[in-house]
Amino acid sequence: MKAPVEFWFDFVSPYAYIAAQSIEQLAARHGREVSWKPMLLGAVFKVTGSSPLTMRPPQMADYFKHDFLRSARYAGVPFVLPELFPIATQNTSRVCLWLQDAAPQRIGEFVRQVTRAYFSGPAALNDADWLAAQIAAMGLDGAAAAAACEDTHYKQALKAQCEQAIVKGIFGAPWIIVDSESFWGNDRLPQVEHWLAQGGF
Amino acid sequence: MKAPVEFWFDFVSPYAYIAAQSIEQLAARHGREVSWKPMLLGAVFKVTGSSPLTMRPPQMADYFKHDFLRSARYAGVPFVLPELFPIATQNTSRVCLWLQDAAPQRIGEFVRQVTRAYFSGPAALNDADWLAAQIAAMGLDGAAAAAACEDTHYKQALKAQCEQAIVKGIFGAPWIIVDSESFWGNDRLPQVEHWLAQGGF
Repeated sequence: MKAPVEFWFDFVSPYAYIAAQSIEQLAARHGREVSWKPMLLGAVFKVTGSSPLTMRPPQMADYFKHDFLRSARYAGVPFVLPELFPIATQNTSRVCLWLQDAAPQRIGEFVRQVTRAYFSGPAALNDADWLAAQIAAMGLDGAAAAAACEDTHYKQALKAQCEQAIVKGIFGAPWIIVDSESFWGNDRLPQVEHWLAQGGF
Repeated sequence: MKAPVEFWFDFVSPYAYIAAQSIEQLAARHGREVSWKPMLLGAVFKVTGSSPLTMRPPQMADYFKHDFLRSARYAGVPFVLPELFPIATQNTSRVCLWLQDAAPQRIGEFVRQVTRAYFSGPAALNDADWLAAQIAAMGLDGAAAAAACEDTHYKQALKAQCEQAIVKGIFGAPWIIVDSESFWGNDRLPQVEHWLAQGGF
């Protein structure tokens, strides 16, 4: 089995949301699995002085708000910019890391489900009770997931993962690593696919 | 005849260079011509506080230098990052505006030729004599082109075009406008093509 495709992301990133809907199928076409790597863009942005796209100067923010929608339509996924955007996603990320222990084969499903909920209607993406309900709806232990939000172990694990992202030079999301090749952005998926198909180019 | 596809660019932009190689063929597949719109990113960047990609923090600059090359390979065009990069391109832009009067049907050829020269080997992209030689090699009036570099008329025309870019909310290159829909980046060409094919999406 070849190394999994690493998918580094923040649950609040619209472009990561779009890419997350298809990355497992893309990887599977080339005999690869996906290793989901939640991180916090807030931590990563500090290194380069970046800021959320909707908080850039008006002409940039306006363009991105329009491009989120258009890129979602192009990919065939629903998109409504949430009223509360961006938000911190540490609890969602901790639940994702908890899933890595509790039911690793369900992570992709969880990521797609909660990001779709957040980006297509009101959803309390980072609320522990809401997350517990999402996990319970998957037939898993919602209470344990909610507990993970306050668990020092998962707090540390998320912190360590953000530090690892910084060490790897990651400065945005989604960030896709194939073997040691880094691709930034939903718009690099065609290159990712070509790379997987050709073994590099 | 439908309105031409507007291609706003700076001659020094690597992603504009890559997109410029195929934009006329792309537009032609949908019965459109290309209206070439040279501008200076230096003027446009002032509005949003942007900076050249290679002058960003090291992890970003390194990523982009790598991505220029990879995106060029992906598109099948040669690419070497010039030793002098980025440079001001006001003379090249003025010659381009002069061509709009002298031989408008040759602009695409000029853009592709001089960007390929700059991005595949040493070339004095913004030097009036070098530009004159490029124009002469096209069978056109090299001396007149060189004179355009110092001509108040073309200086004003370029300034006006940069101001128009700012009014349109353009903050990067390449910037492609189909009817009134704006697409930023070489990586949006698939969306541009889909938009042209579908009449919007």
